[in-house]
Amino acid sequence: MDDIVKKIIAGDVRTVARLIRDIDDGIPEVREVLKKLYPYTGNAYVIGITGAPGVGKSTLVDQMVAHLRDQGKTVGVLAVDPTSPFSGGAILGDRVRMQRHSMDSGVFIRSMATRGHFGGLTQSTRSAIDVLDAMGKDYILVETVGVGQDEVDVVKSAHTTVIVVIPGMGDDIQAIKAGILEAGDIFVINKAEREGADKTLADLRLMLDMDQNKYREGKWKPPILKTEAVFDKGVVELLEEIEKHREYLKQTHGTLLPRRQKEKVSQELLDMVKSRLIEEVLGKLTETGEFDRAVDEIVEGQIDPYTACDNLVLPNIESNSSSKK
Amino acid sequence: MDDIVKKIIAGDVRTVARLIRDIDDGIPEVREVLKKLYPYTGNAYVIGITGAPGVGKSTLVDQMVAHLRDQGKTVGVLAVDPTSPFSGGAILGDRVRMQRHSMDSGVFIRSMATRGHFGGLTQSTRSAIDVLDAMGKDYILVETVGVGQDEVDVVKSAHTTVIVVIPGMGDDIQAIKAGILEAGDIFVINKAEREGADKTLADLRLMLDMDQNKYREGKWKPPILKTEAVFDKGVVELLEEIEKHREYLKQTHGTLLPRRQKEKVSQELLDMVKSRLIEEVLGKLTETGEFDRAVDEIVEGQIDPYTACDNLVLPNIESNSSSKK
Repeated sequence: MDDIVKKIIAGDVRTVARLIRDIDDGIPEVREVLKKLYPYTGNAYVIGITGAPGVGKSTLVDQMVAHLRDQGKTVGVLAVDPTSPFSGGAILGDRVRMQRHSMDSGVFIRSMATRGHFGGLTQSTRSAIDVLDAMGKDYILVETVGVGQDEVDVVKSAHTTVIVVIPGMGDDIQAIKAGILEAGDIFVINKAEREGADKTLADLRLMLDMDQNKYREGKWKPPILKTEAVFDKGVVELLEEIEKHREYLKQTHGTLLPRRQKEKVSQELLDMVKSRLIEEVLGKLTETGEFDRAVDEIVEGQIDPYTACDNLVLPNIESNSSSKK
Repeated sequence: MDDIVKKIIAGDVRTVARLIRDIDDGIPEVREVLKKLYPYTGNAYVIGITGAPGVGKSTLVDQMVAHLRDQGKTVGVLAVDPTSPFSGGAILGDRVRMQRHSMDSGVFIRSMATRGHFGGLTQSTRSAIDVLDAMGKDYILVETVGVGQDEVDVVKSAHTTVIVVIPGMGDDIQAIKAGILEAGDIFVINKAEREGADKTLADLRLMLDMDQNKYREGKWKPPILKTEAVFDKGVVELLEEIEKHREYLKQTHGTLLPRRQKEKVSQELLDMVKSRLIEEVLGKLTETGEFDRAVDEIVEGQIDPYTACDNLVLPNIESNSSSKK
């Protein structure tokens, strides 16, 4: 155990890769390693990059990695994609493209799929961020496909969240989940050489202004940048904006970066407790066959689902629980 | 209690409205009522209508209600929207539009917002469906904004799921969450008078064909219809397709409709057990202040979140739980 911890802190790539795979596979034993790694975390700067499929997130990430390496920074990349029939291809393409960094020991790249586990995507990604942080990476770039609640939760763990769109999304830009727009610190219109980039910029500005009036205290005004990631245009400017946001965070929150702030700690602990509860109790109910028997009884009309739920849950939680009847 | 149950079965609008509000507010006592209502459920036909904001779902629902009423059917409508700053306005507009049915005792319309509760949207919506079902409605139309996992889960509870898009979504159609596409039984291109309707139809057909090859057994081939809901065009045809799908379900699954089928029962029970566990245990941890104390300790660096999670969860679940360390 302590051997694993030491190897990770020393940056041993194989050990890190194995641990992240174990996290992705939902192996419970990783928790003990994570506990020991935690004191070594808190140094990396975490950047979330999110947007719909096809907006060019991975090309952008690839260029960001190159520039950060030029500055002598070490970088970890987590590409998070809840594997789906429609996006499965993208992951493969991404990883091939990323190969230009594969011989560089200052870059560590991993994809996470995480499906079918009770804990879910958010939990695994946060743990993987902790691992890359403990490993000593200066920057951790977390790339997610921004469509669901899970992805919103993931980007909320980042220090700076970059939301990527492309021109021509026009009216449909409202289809971006509101929670994601609110979570954006910097907006990027990638493929800005395409027609309609200015219209998209204006639309986005309008939506953000509406949002800010209501929900922000007028502090950080999210900039909107145009990039052409394939031609490496605008990427340096994006990194500069990220540094500005980092400075802003430092000035407003002292040296405390978001994941150490009370609100984010509270959200992360809440998610962790939920996942854990489900894992422990549902794991048991599945193993013992109790869950399947209850399903059969409902299908056969012997019991209603509300009573079945009582019967499954109540005996498995401590009897001093408040609302137990 | 039995009085409430009797009133609901008799279709008393005020009692139903109050119960649905209590469900939406997450009041635990509703469970006892739901248990007693359950034997009276299973008769309504549930239609899910989902799609991005602005595609005209509520106008479509409004027209569907009018036609179903012409056929002498009673209808319940649940408009489900996890309240967001960007869609808040839509709900209001919808409800105003729906007022043409407000004097018709054969129609019952309610919005559900459900936020901030542990149980979440899916759980409350399913319970509300049970209530409208027990109330005796022939059809229940559940309108959701189709962007997140919650909405996917909601439509999976419907017998027939209608997915609504508009022309010109073009390439961006892939931004529709894959899970939602897979859940679609019928696709509607609304506002079909707009340019690009045929292109959208072709794109959609292609995506569905790809999907079907892999994931369906070539049985129900989801039709794609064009509608112009504001002009009441195509709505009758949509209702005919829904009837065809209902016939298909009957033939392939006997008289068992989806929510009584094993797979759906299993999914619903799983969700219900998860919500309940979280509600019971997190409710207690919040009340006693244990959760907040743990957050403070993490922020102050006295404990790591993984250990804090152990300390919160393990004492609250029965000690014979399988993976307890």
